[in-house]
Amino acid sequence: MTKVAVLGSGSWGTAFANVVADAGVAEVVLWGRRAEVVDAIGRRHENPDYFPDVGLNPALSATTDADKALDSAEFVVIAVPSQTLRANLEAWRAAVPRDAVIVSLMKGIELGTSRRMSEVIAEALELPAEQVAVVSGPNLAREIAERQPATAVVACAHEPTAVRLQHICKSAYFRPYTNTDVVGAELGGAVKNVIALAVGVAVGMGFGDNAKASLITRGLAETVRLAVSLGADEHTLAGLAGMGDLVATCSSPLSRNRTFGEKLGSGMTLEEVIAETRQTAEGVKSSESILALARANGVDMPITEAVVAMMHHDLPPAQALLAFMSRSAKPERYGM
Amino acid sequence: MTKVAVLGSGSWGTAFANVVADAGVAEVVLWGRRAEVVDAIGRRHENPDYFPDVGLNPALSATTDADKALDSAEFVVIAVPSQTLRANLEAWRAAVPRDAVIVSLMKGIELGTSRRMSEVIAEALELPAEQVAVVSGPNLAREIAERQPATAVVACAHEPTAVRLQHICKSAYFRPYTNTDVVGAELGGAVKNVIALAVGVAVGMGFGDNAKASLITRGLAETVRLAVSLGADEHTLAGLAGMGDLVATCSSPLSRNRTFGEKLGSGMTLEEVIAETRQTAEGVKSSESILALARANGVDMPITEAVVAMMHHDLPPAQALLAFMSRSAKPERYGM
Repeated sequence: MTKVAVLGSGSWGTAFANVVADAGVAEVVLWGRRAEVVDAIGRRHENPDYFPDVGLNPALSATTDADKALDSAEFVVIAVPSQTLRANLEAWRAAVPRDAVIVSLMKGIELGTSRRMSEVIAEALELPAEQVAVVSGPNLAREIAERQPATAVVACAHEPTAVRLQHICKSAYFRPYTNTDVVGAELGGAVKNVIALAVGVAVGMGFGDNAKASLITRGLAETVRLAVSLGADEHTLAGLAGMGDLVATCSSPLSRNRTFGEKLGSGMTLEEVIAETRQTAEGVKSSESILALARANGVDMPITEAVVAMMHHDLPPAQALLAFMSRSAKPERYGM
Repeated sequence: MTKVAVLGSGSWGTAFANVVADAGVAEVVLWGRRAEVVDAIGRRHENPDYFPDVGLNPALSATTDADKALDSAEFVVIAVPSQTLRANLEAWRAAVPRDAVIVSLMKGIELGTSRRMSEVIAEALELPAEQVAVVSGPNLAREIAERQPATAVVACAHEPTAVRLQHICKSAYFRPYTNTDVVGAELGGAVKNVIALAVGVAVGMGFGDNAKASLITRGLAETVRLAVSLGADEHTLAGLAGMGDLVATCSSPLSRNRTFGEKLGSGMTLEEVIAETRQTAEGVKSSESILALARANGVDMPITEAVVAMMHHDLPPAQALLAFMSRSAKPERYGM
């Protein structure tokens, strides 16, 4: 039986490991740092941190021993905080089987290098891009843990690998589509966190569904501009890993990034919001690396600029959104 | 001063007339069929049917006399139910100034002919396409009446006309972008009503944000396929009149089409939903003409097919959605 190691027992790592267990064609071992979480998953089949009320598949085993999880794994699925990926890879490197396919569940851009997660993986493990894949799409972890229906994109430059990955995670409620555009899938996932922050701010300020939909639409447009300048296919962004993920994140009260923005928009200070936020709002950090990437490629990203200004340079939300609504009237495709 | 006649005192006709009045560069006369509504708008500056609590611009006048509204109008904005447009145009035809620009606010496809609203206008009034424009986008009428921020697309094959139209409706809260792709703008608006019905059904059945976002994304993909086959630019559909309008409609509890679907999904029979629905759910009718258009052009529209089957051939919602989720695993761009 194919062995799958899932590294990271956060909400998405746990939910995805459970999807693979439910798919039933591979053996899955979940690695987590904290013994009490690993213990609860292995013995009581639940993750008390994220889904205390959801029964996980009993076939899913868990360990705090990364070497044990990685031993003879054919797929190594990684779901750790984006900015800790490189350090984690250094620690795991010796134990990763050389012919394993590495699958990223992460949606961020590395600070300092502006690298996508699959690039960090290929670089740190010295693997060809064809051996690295990503899973992305409208995948709120809690709904997937609850086995509610969802679709996703499994992307790999080497299509047969994407098809193998599709096979190990396809279940009655989880429907993965293959794609070979890794750049598009990763940028869709990373930038959507930034746009979700902006949408959250708008919601917090009391803006309605028309304004929210405008921000989402213009937000995807700037994502497309950046992604295409980096070699992505714009159709990937019009699909599940772009529009789909963005719409799910911006609609859901479960989204950390949207919630973070909402608190800021409703009048809390940045310090108050950060103090109150247990989990990372990925977009706060990634917004800076995405803007750096945009500037280096001469791409205009006005919403991302506004998010960086609000999250890192104390621009008041009211001023940022007013600027967005009051620019001069233009043809819709201006700058595309 | 430029004179604008707005024909139709429903929610969108009233809200748009108020936008033009607020923009302040044209004189606006609103025509309505019912004396009591026209009277309330003209004297009390409110539309008791739709926004009893919103103060309309006192500069907005109203009449039941179409000839009077049309007299020397430079812009004739039409907002009547799609399926009554042709009959209305016959009645108004003699009074429409020959050099007026006709602006459609309607989002439907004519039953029987499968014509877009701008095509019906050009045909019935014997006008060149360059004299017909459309306004579309994420424009929930109630929010716009309340002067909440919104963006829109003003489309006309003749760009200077789109720019003139933009000028008369641009205000502090309403931001119109010009576009020359009338086909794309109209199809985005018409098909979104059908997709909103499907999303409503999913919501009524208890599906979560992942499934809703998947349906919205796949729904836009089939809209793009149809629109492009009819000559539209796919970027229009990725913009405010496509994705923007679809996302706003599918997010909002104010949407008639979404609400109609939601009731059906939650277990009411089609007859019960129709009996309880005061205003038309445009998508119920348009779904048939859109499917006819798709078939005539060899375009695959699985969500629209499912909606027609649910709305007109008694297919139970559970069966329709199950079919959508359980098709065989494919590459994402299959059939594009």
